[in-house]
Parts: sequence; C-alpha cells; structure tokens
Amino acid sequence: MNPIIELLRRHRSIRKFKPDPLTPEQIEAILRAAQSASTSSNVQAYSVVNVTDPALRKKLRAVAADQAYVEQCPLFLVWCADMYRLRLACEKEGVRMVHDTMENFIVATVDTALAAQNAAVAAESMGLGVVYIGSIRNDAREAARLLNLPELVYPVFGMCIGYPDHEPMPRPRLPLRAILHENGYNPSALPDAIDEYDATMRQYYAERTKGRRDTTWSKEMADKFRQPLRDYMRAFLEEQGFRFER
Amino acid sequence: MNPIIELLRRHRSIRKFKPDPLTPEQIEAILRAAQSASTSSNVQAYSVVNVTDPALRKKLRAVAADQAYVEQCPLFLVWCADMYRLRLACEKEGVRMVHDTMENFIVATVDTALAAQNAAVAAESMGLGVVYIGSIRNDAREAARLLNLPELVYPVFGMCIGYPDHEPMPRPRLPLRAILHENGYNPSALPDAIDEYDATMRQYYAERTKGRRDTTWSKEMADKFRQPLRDYMRAFLEEQGFRFER
Repeated sequence: MNPIIELLRRHRSIRKFKPDPLTPEQIEAILRAAQSASTSSNVQAYSVVNVTDPALRKKLRAVAADQAYVEQCPLFLVWCADMYRLRLACEKEGVRMVHDTMENFIVATVDTALAAQNAAVAAESMGLGVVYIGSIRNDAREAARLLNLPELVYPVFGMCIGYPDHEPMPRPRLPLRAILHENGYNPSALPDAIDEYDATMRQYYAERTKGRRDTTWSKEMADKFRQPLRDYMRAFLEEQGFRFER
Repeated sequence: MNPIIELLRRHRSIRKFKPDPLTPEQIEAILRAAQSASTSSNVQAYSVVNVTDPALRKKLRAVAADQAYVEQCPLFLVWCADMYRLRLACEKEGVRMVHDTMENFIVATVDTALAAQNAAVAAESMGLGVVYIGSIRNDAREAARLLNLPELVYPVFGMCIGYPDHEPMPRPRLPLRAILHENGYNPSALPDAIDEYDATMRQYYAERTKGRRDTTWSKEMADKFRQPLRDYMRAFLEEQGFRFER
C-alpha cells in the first residue's frame, strides 16, 4: 500500500458539493491528467464539454434524472466518445474514414472511459470529490442536442466535480474471487461469491438506512435488469452516424 | 500539481519488462484498486483473467500480433466485460435478465475500462509499468475460446504489467483545445488544433526515429481508418450472446 493506492481505495461517489469553485489551474490539471491516459493507437477518440452556463446546467439536470448536483456542482464535464475529429484528420489526408464497425465504437468508448477515470483520480488527489453521471444517457439524444454534438460523437457520461460536502460510506465491492480468474473463466466459483456479497450488501444497506432497506445485490440487479434499459440507444447512436454492421 | 497528478502525467506505455515477478500482495493491491473504481449502479460488469500458464501466454501472444511482451511480462491480465455474473444474480432472484440493449453493452464496456485504468494507476504508483493490449481483439473469438469465456463475456483488452526495462519518451497529446469545449461542441476550433498537433507529432516521430520516420498524426489516422478494423467483432459479440437490437 502507498498513498496513491490508498486514495484509489478510498473512492466514494460524492453527491453533495460545497459551492467553492475550482481554479482554472485545477481544471487544466484534471484535463491534462485525463489526456495522459492510454489511448488505442493514439486515436484519442474522446472530447469533453465543460458546462459552465447555468441555463444549460438546468436543462442537463432535467435529462439526468433531475439530480440536483448536476446543476449545483462547481465543475460539470460531459465525456463524449468522438470519432468526428478522426474523420477530420482522415479528410485532411484525402481519406474517407471507414467507421461502420463495432470495433471503432468500442475503441472510442474505452478511450473516453480511460481518460475520464484519470480525471477522477486527479480530482480526488486534490481533495475533490466526483460522481459519474450515467443518467445523462436517460436522454442522450437531448443531451447531444443541447451540447451541439456533431455526427460521430455521443455523450457517454457526465461527471460532477467539487469539494465534498458529505462523507458517504464507501460501498463494499464483490469479493475478489468473484471477478478474478486464473488462466480461464471459472463459472463454478460464482454462486458462493454472489451469496457472500449478498449478505455483505444486506448488512451495508441496513446500516446505511438504519434498517429501513432490506435488500441484496442480487435483488438490486434483478430489479434493474428485468426490463430493457435505455432502449432507444441503438437508434440514437445511428442518428449520430455510428454504424454496427460488422 | 501534486505527486499523484505528476504520476498520471508521466504515463508512457512500457513494452520491455524486467523478469522480476510481482508479489501476491502487489497483485491483490492492483486488483482491489481496480474494484474501487466507479461502476454504473454497482453492476461491476467486468472480470479479470490472470494468465499465469506459459503455454496459454504463448497462444495469447499469437492472438495479439505476436507481441513478445504478452508472453514475457511478469503479470498479464485480460480485462473482460461481463454480463454473465449479472445474469446469475438475476436467476438467483427468478428474473430473466434483459440484455439485448446497446445500453447494457456500453455499461459493461465502460465499467471494465474504469476498473482497468485504476489498476494501471495503482501499478504505476508502485514503480511498475503497464501497456494495454488492444490487439487481443485481433482475434477476440480465439482469445475467448482460450480463456473459456462464457456467454455475455468478451475480452476488451489485455494488460501487461511489470518493472520497466526501458524508458520511452512520453508521446505528446492533442492540444487541450482540440478535446475541450465549453457549453457546446465547437467544430470550427478543430482544424487549427489538428494542424498544430500534426507538426508536434512530425517532430516527435523524427526525434524518436532519428529522422527515419516522416509522418503526422493525421497521416497515421488516415492509414488506420482507411479500411475496416476487426470487422468480425459484431458477429463475435453476437456469438457471445450480446444483442444490439435496441
């Protein structure tokens, strides 16, 4: 263990922020740390929209399940997978970019996530707290319209950043043996590990809610995945010019 | 700037490793740091295969463009997006998981990348070097077969970890203004920023190769994207049970 690993292990999502703004230097440090993350063949297939306009924040809050912190946090970034800039680079060389592959979509989505996670770590290293806003995908079409995203760009998630104004309990994770395999995936290890985690999470929810919430991880996941989620996403991505033919 | 941001900014991919093995404690610290990353609604939709078997390493090296470091690095992890474990959790609750959405695929892919990036940072904090192995997707079907991946699991990338045995120059990134927008995406800012980066990269390649390589970022990208990449990926993912109907 070292201070950096301790920082990573202490991560918890922050959903209440002090009003103190970040300095321009802090914002630049966060974004340059993001840029230092690995990127597939240096494609750097992501862009970031820093939303400073209060009216725009309010509209994005409405997209993102009306979460107040989207409007109120000092820094709100929208992380976008971006093949548009790559198309410009190809056109500069007189080349028509081929972009109808699932592979390109994976590359852009992964590049975005790697950069964002570096940003999150950089922010936390300065004593800031962060939360990912996946709910921007509740209506990614509207978010893309509000942010003027061109073809071949889609909003993967938002991110609120600021000084924490609460101290939530870190949420326990699956036992390591539930996610780690040696030399080959071993499905038979999973049921026991899931049972153990369900017991852990039942206790966690009970403590956090002073006994009002009696549930487990499996129950939460069953509730979440019993219906299709954000089932307009394929259509929206095709509207943005992404193709998944092969 | 602080030591953590300095660490992030110093990142460069390492492709030559000393033979010194990692301790079990180091490996556990890396994986627990990965687990501490944010995850969408706590779904934790990823798994990691630690490949310790030399014969299996050799086969994965053949998949991954014959990169010697896949075989030779002290620790080789394959990071997999995983909805299979979530299906088990649903089944435990008697629920049939709906998993035919692009949304679920995005969630699993993003979760995997966030966890992996935390692992990369944790490794680098211990003086280790890492490189992502996207070329595992050169034949993801064969990688999945070799690693016995069940339905609803796919290998997103590999990762080599170990003590660096070379010191490559960090690769310059796009100017910040090429990736950062305020309140809305501004395409008109891009051409100048790309030109600037092309000049930077021409100089970088010339220095790195002592003048033997005369190219730019745009040329590299045009060469890469003039043909479809890994165009079996959609078919492979469907074989693994992923669906993208909506």
